[in-house]
Amino acid sequence: MSEPVNIPTHWYNIAGDLPVAPPPHLHPGTKEPITADDLAPLFAKGLIEQELSTETNIEIPEPIRDVYRNYRTTPLIRAHAFEKALGTPARIYVKYEGVSPVGSHKVNSAVAQAYYNSIDGVKRLTTETGAGQWGSALSFACAKFGIDLEVWQVRASYESKPYRRFLIETYGGTVHASPSELTDAGRQVLADYPDTPGSLGIAVSEAVEVAVKDPAARYTLGSVLNHVVLHQTVIGLEAVAQLRAAGEENADVVFGCAGGGSNLAGLAFPFIREVLHERAATRVVAVEPAACPSITRGEYRYDHGDIAGLTPLLKMHTLGQDFIPDPIHAGGLRYHGMAPLLSHTVELGYVEGKAVPQTDAFAAAVQFARTEGIVPAPESAHAIAAAAEYAKGLTEPEVVVIGLSGHGQLDLPAYHAYLSGNLD
Amino acid sequence: MSEPVNIPTHWYNIAGDLPVAPPPHLHPGTKEPITADDLAPLFAKGLIEQELSTETNIEIPEPIRDVYRNYRTTPLIRAHAFEKALGTPARIYVKYEGVSPVGSHKVNSAVAQAYYNSIDGVKRLTTETGAGQWGSALSFACAKFGIDLEVWQVRASYESKPYRRFLIETYGGTVHASPSELTDAGRQVLADYPDTPGSLGIAVSEAVEVAVKDPAARYTLGSVLNHVVLHQTVIGLEAVAQLRAAGEENADVVFGCAGGGSNLAGLAFPFIREVLHERAATRVVAVEPAACPSITRGEYRYDHGDIAGLTPLLKMHTLGQDFIPDPIHAGGLRYHGMAPLLSHTVELGYVEGKAVPQTDAFAAAVQFARTEGIVPAPESAHAIAAAAEYAKGLTEPEVVVIGLSGHGQLDLPAYHAYLSGNLD
Repeated sequence: MSEPVNIPTHWYNIAGDLPVAPPPHLHPGTKEPITADDLAPLFAKGLIEQELSTETNIEIPEPIRDVYRNYRTTPLIRAHAFEKALGTPARIYVKYEGVSPVGSHKVNSAVAQAYYNSIDGVKRLTTETGAGQWGSALSFACAKFGIDLEVWQVRASYESKPYRRFLIETYGGTVHASPSELTDAGRQVLADYPDTPGSLGIAVSEAVEVAVKDPAARYTLGSVLNHVVLHQTVIGLEAVAQLRAAGEENADVVFGCAGGGSNLAGLAFPFIREVLHERAATRVVAVEPAACPSITRGEYRYDHGDIAGLTPLLKMHTLGQDFIPDPIHAGGLRYHGMAPLLSHTVELGYVEGKAVPQTDAFAAAVQFARTEGIVPAPESAHAIAAAAEYAKGLTEPEVVVIGLSGHGQLDLPAYHAYLSGNLD
Repeated sequence: MSEPVNIPTHWYNIAGDLPVAPPPHLHPGTKEPITADDLAPLFAKGLIEQELSTETNIEIPEPIRDVYRNYRTTPLIRAHAFEKALGTPARIYVKYEGVSPVGSHKVNSAVAQAYYNSIDGVKRLTTETGAGQWGSALSFACAKFGIDLEVWQVRASYESKPYRRFLIETYGGTVHASPSELTDAGRQVLADYPDTPGSLGIAVSEAVEVAVKDPAARYTLGSVLNHVVLHQTVIGLEAVAQLRAAGEENADVVFGCAGGGSNLAGLAFPFIREVLHERAATRVVAVEPAACPSITRGEYRYDHGDIAGLTPLLKMHTLGQDFIPDPIHAGGLRYHGMAPLLSHTVELGYVEGKAVPQTDAFAAAVQFARTEGIVPAPESAHAIAAAAEYAKGLTEPEVVVIGLSGHGQLDLPAYHAYLSGNLD
């Protein structure tokens, strides 16, 4: 029996480890590099420190590790049956975050964000959510740390996919369909387009507006920003150690899905650390939906994180702040931009992008479910599809790691649609 | 760091360890003790051997352990936050089976049943399911071992709770609403009651009828029988070892929900082994719904497992083969009888029953979700409610173990109904 792998004691901040410093975020008004003071109305102090930090290793506070202990370390599964079905010589390992209480990796950052807000005395948090993975993770975290949560959920999801809304409410959070009558941004959109299905960009603007107007409230974001990426590195830190414990020296290729980028970056950055320190030559593939291809088809430039331009300007791969992707089932990947830190590592050549059509993603996910038992979240299905295609093309053994960011049990109607030939 | 706990190498068969042998099953026609030959048209040979075995330790075949490795050992979680919320001096440990690929403990037996059928060359299995936990677990297991599966699902669930039906289909199984036009039993019911919502008893009769008529097919059951209980003992075997690894000598009380009984027995029998061998004085509480109280209100006598009387006669606590429980959300607990082995341990004084109303179960489950993050299956919620009530009454520390048989993410509409004050 191999040595057990422990829960990490520190997050890994790649910003302190790269040969070229990442471009700073800019103030949306002055266009100057953003300061901690600029961010103070929006985020908890501890999170702002992390956003701007160049420390390579940042200690995980004990109250956060205490929650992590309830579900971490998450399994690294050798997918023997999936390999056999693919007929590949690859050894495929799947890092599975779906065992978290809420069912996805989002909990890793939600717990940290709620904690740092709680030590600032914050009693009210706002956020947006699409399909609801982030909203439900944060609702759980807020329940843990005694904070009231209001979530603006994209109206189309609010109405058509009620399960995650019920999950947010079960943890005690309040959900508003976005656009709502509760904000200037929402009222404006409703006046112009009463029947709009909403979008993440609108929901961000609503949640930010409410937080900024209430000095006792703060805003939280479930991906994109440096501190969110930082928290997610527990995934990759464990995976690197678990792979070694399983007898593998290194990964040859790492596949993860990328929407805002925190899942892929969280998994991949600890593998890239091995590359940076010349201990490995691992390739990293960020898999995005063909319907929202920010890395493979977007521009690398400064852009806003929301439609109303309330967020800082972020240097990232972007399809434009007003880009509205098709309504694919992988709601967590429907974002116009990509985490600046991840975009930067793409530019430096440590990460490559790959776009996958939705039907290919579901085909691979069904094959994975029938061999390994786990029904992947539609987001994760994109990574599985890209990895499967790669593995099938191999003639020599390689070590392939797939990030499985969450389970898809609340997305079963999408599987039903795929199996019935009715996928949009 | 404590010693890691390994996946068990053997299941524990309490039938070989009890001071009084359990009463045999009887042939429904002759009323004589049932033989292996009698059972041959219904079940795989390996399962029949286990059903009749008095060996105490039965080796788990490697192909089954291989699937177990993908999700076992399952976590034993110290529920610090829940303890604090209850204000109890108890140390509460939760054995959590919801991390299995399908989301509940049912996989433990499904994999074993599919495996033993596969080595008999069986190509077609039939079964029934209520809410769909068992059907989805078996569908996954059949995909693993290359067997076609047909599931008769109680019509009310088939129509109103489609997610688990989609899950069965995602794994490749076929689902029929029961009663169906495909069987004599189904056609009979439909002729008499065209609008019937169906029942588990009817669905069992349909699945048995189809299996018996096709020499190449076999039937499977997700609870009640000795071999199913046997497979589930991996839960308790791990929990006993994990509790010791956590520094506890023994459990004082073990709570688990009991419908057909395999979850509770699987968790509790390894703890009762400690009692039988005078290494512990653990109490075991089988928690059942007030709407279907077979242990606390039923009779202990021979009865059939299905409405049509096709199954063997089982000596068990029963509300009668034609008892139709109220449509509570804990569909997995809506069964008129109780596993004969579990009923026998109740009679011998090793297990006591406790009935819990549905609203109490949801109240405790919401408190648990808000403190520990896991949304319990409505079935498991009954165990949590009984344990919480017990723990709140303690003035001295005790070690309390709760079996959390599955997550409730596919039961969120029931939580929504509870939180809205609209629970049936």
